[in-house]
Amino acid sequence: MLTISERGTAMPASPIRKLVPFAEAAKKKGTKVYHLNIGQPDIETPAEIMDAVKNTDMKVLEYSHSAGNESYRRKLVEYYKRVGIDVTHDQIMITAGGSEAILFGFFSCLNPGDEVIIPEPFYANYNGFACTAGVNVVPITSYIETGFALPPIEDFEKVITSKTKAIVVCNPNNPTGYLYSREEMEALKNICLKHNLYLFSDEAYREFCYDGEYISAMQLEGLEEHVVLMDTISKRYSACGARIGALVTKNKAVYDTAMKFAQARLSPPGLAQILGEAAVDLPESYFDAPKAEYLHRRDTLIKRLNAMPGVFCPTPGGAFYAIARLPIDDADKFCQWLLESFSHNNQTVMLAPATGFYGTPGLGKNEVRLAYVLNADAINAAMDCLEKALKQYPGIVK
Amino acid sequence: MLTISERGTAMPASPIRKLVPFAEAAKKKGTKVYHLNIGQPDIETPAEIMDAVKNTDMKVLEYSHSAGNESYRRKLVEYYKRVGIDVTHDQIMITAGGSEAILFGFFSCLNPGDEVIIPEPFYANYNGFACTAGVNVVPITSYIETGFALPPIEDFEKVITSKTKAIVVCNPNNPTGYLYSREEMEALKNICLKHNLYLFSDEAYREFCYDGEYISAMQLEGLEEHVVLMDTISKRYSACGARIGALVTKNKAVYDTAMKFAQARLSPPGLAQILGEAAVDLPESYFDAPKAEYLHRRDTLIKRLNAMPGVFCPTPGGAFYAIARLPIDDADKFCQWLLESFSHNNQTVMLAPATGFYGTPGLGKNEVRLAYVLNADAINAAMDCLEKALKQYPGIVK
Repeated sequence: MLTISERGTAMPASPIRKLVPFAEAAKKKGTKVYHLNIGQPDIETPAEIMDAVKNTDMKVLEYSHSAGNESYRRKLVEYYKRVGIDVTHDQIMITAGGSEAILFGFFSCLNPGDEVIIPEPFYANYNGFACTAGVNVVPITSYIETGFALPPIEDFEKVITSKTKAIVVCNPNNPTGYLYSREEMEALKNICLKHNLYLFSDEAYREFCYDGEYISAMQLEGLEEHVVLMDTISKRYSACGARIGALVTKNKAVYDTAMKFAQARLSPPGLAQILGEAAVDLPESYFDAPKAEYLHRRDTLIKRLNAMPGVFCPTPGGAFYAIARLPIDDADKFCQWLLESFSHNNQTVMLAPATGFYGTPGLGKNEVRLAYVLNADAINAAMDCLEKALKQYPGIVK
Repeated sequence: MLTISERGTAMPASPIRKLVPFAEAAKKKGTKVYHLNIGQPDIETPAEIMDAVKNTDMKVLEYSHSAGNESYRRKLVEYYKRVGIDVTHDQIMITAGGSEAILFGFFSCLNPGDEVIIPEPFYANYNGFACTAGVNVVPITSYIETGFALPPIEDFEKVITSKTKAIVVCNPNNPTGYLYSREEMEALKNICLKHNLYLFSDEAYREFCYDGEYISAMQLEGLEEHVVLMDTISKRYSACGARIGALVTKNKAVYDTAMKFAQARLSPPGLAQILGEAAVDLPESYFDAPKAEYLHRRDTLIKRLNAMPGVFCPTPGGAFYAIARLPIDDADKFCQWLLESFSHNNQTVMLAPATGFYGTPGLGKNEVRLAYVLNADAINAAMDCLEKALKQYPGIVK
C-alpha cells in the first residue's frame, strides 16, 4: 500500500480553519457570520502600493535574486532603521510570507529531535513548522491572570535540556496581544546567552503597539549572533495575500545556510516584492490611522467582553488579538455551537477556540481568541451575539 | 557554540548559481556575458496576463484559500482538460512555484531516510528538496549516447530497496530536454505498480515538445493513486518570477496531507494567482509563437554545437535545454575559465557544468547544460565564443 509520511500524518490541521465548514453551512442558511476568528484585517491595502504593481512596465516577470530584489532589501534597511533596527541589506532575505522565514530559520538551525521552547498560548502554525522540520515544541505556560506575561525564567530553566536549541517569541504576541517589556526581553536575552540558544523573534505586529514600548529582539545588545527575526508585511500594510516576509539575522552562518534553502526554491514572489518595496516609501504617518482604528476596536471589544457576566479579558498591549476566558465547558464545542446552533437577529460570530494555541493538552478549554479585524460596529454586533449566546449555550459553567 | 543544523550543512548550494560571482566580475570588466546557464527565458510575459493584475480593483489583498483561489482552480480544470488531463478543482492545489509543490509532495509521502530514484542527470534542486525532507536521492544514469533516454527497467530494479518510495521524472526533461515516449512512461507505470511507488512527475515544460508525443503521468491508466504532478506556470508563460505552481493528484490522502502543509503557510501568492488565472484564458494559439521560437533556437544551437570538433549534443525533443559533451578535462573549471580568463570580441558565454546535475560523483565532467533562452543571434554569438574558447582552453582533451 502507498503510505503517507509520518510527518504528514503528525502534521496538525489548522485549528483556526477547522471550523470553516460550519461557518460555510451557517452562511448557506442565510446567517451573517462575524469573523473574529482569523487575523485577516478589513483595513484597505494602501492604494499607493497596489498602484506600484499596476504601474510596473516590466516585460518579463523574471526570477529575482533568491534573497529578493537588492533594491527592495536596500529599501528595507531604511525601514528597519526607522524602527530602531540596524541591519545591512545582506542580512535581509525576502521570503514567501513570514511562514517561509520561520521554516528557513528552523531548517537552518535545528535538527530533527531538537527542542524549541515557546511560551503558550502561541501562534498555532508554529506547530506545523516544527512538525515540518521534525522539531519538538516545548510549551511553557503564560496565564490569563497576568495578561499572558512572559513566564518566569525558572519555568524556562526547568524545561531546558541538551536538546533545547531555541526559544520562539512573538512580540507583540499573537494570539494574546501581549507586548513584552524591556525587562522581559532582557530576561530572554540572558537565558539565551546562558544556555546558548537561538532566539527566533516573530515581530509581525511591530507597528501595532498601544501601551508600552516596543523592544525588538534585534536591539538586544550582545545577542546579535543568536537572533533570527521573522518578519512579514502581511499585517503591517494589510497585505496578507502578498506573501512577502523576511528573515533577518546578523548571524552570517545562519544567513548563508538559509540562503541555500532560498536558492532551492529560486526566488520569492516577484509582483509582491514591488508592492513591498513601495510600502517602505509610505509616509510614517501612514500607520496613524490603522493604529488609531485598531486601538478603538480593541477598547470597544475589551469593554464589551468584560461587561459580560463570567467573562474576563485582559487588555492586550499590541497586535490585534485578545484571549478571553468564558464561562463555558469547552471552547471547541462552543465555537462550533455558535455556528451550528445559534443565531441572534440572523447573525452569529466565529471565534477561534484557544485550545489550538496551547501545546499542553487540556489548556485553553474555557478561552477563545478574538481578532479585532472588523470595525467597531461589527465588533459590537458580534458582541451582542456573544452576549446572547452565553445566555443560551447549554454548556455554561457558572 | 550556536550550531547550524545537519540538514542546513548538508544542503547543497545551487550549482547553477555558484558561478554567478565570476559572471559579475566579468561584467564589471566590461565583458558581455551570454547567459545560457539558467532557464530564465527572454520571451515576454504575455501583456494580457500582466494586465489582469494591473486591472484588479481589489481593496484588500487578502489571504486566499490555502489551496489557492477556487476560481483559479476551476479554470485550471479547463486548462488540464485541454492538455489531456482529467482532474477536478479539488485535486489541484496552487503552490508558490513548482518548488513548493515538490516540497509538499516529498513532505507528504516520504519519511526521512526514504529513497527516491531519479534518472540522472536531473534538475539540481531536487537534491535540495530531498535534503530538506531528509530523503535520499538514488540516481540511475541515463547516457548522452542515447540522448538521455530512460535507463532500462533493470537499472531501476537493481536499486530498489525496502526504503524506495518514489520515482521522480521530469518530462520533457530539464536538464536534458529528453521527451519520454509512451513506452517509457508505460515502463515507469509498471515499475511503480509492481513496487508500489509514488511517481512524482514534474511537467513544467509540457507546452514545449518538438518531436514526438507528450504523455503526462496523469494519463497512465491504473496509476492514478500513485501520481503526484508538480506543475508551474514559470516557463509556460515566461512568468518565472510569479512563483505560481500546482500540486495535482487524484490521491485524496496525499492531497489532504499536502493541504495541512499548505494551511500552515496560509496561502500561495495572491497577485500572481490573478495572473495565473488570466493565463488560462490565453488562446491556445498563444503557444505557437514561443514554441516556434524555441524550436528555431534549438536547431540553431544543436547545429552549431555538433559542427565543433569533438563536441556532441543529441537533439532534445522538448523543454529548452540541451546537454553537450565537450572535449574538456573538467566542466566546472572550463565554465569558470570562460568567465574569468576568456573573451572573444569582448564577449563570453556562461554555461552550467553538468556535474551539478548528476548524483553519481565523477559523472558529467565533460558535459555542460545549455539553456536556449536567448534569441538565435545571441545563441550564434555565444557559439562563436564557445568555438573560440575550445581552441584556447588549456584543459582540452583530444
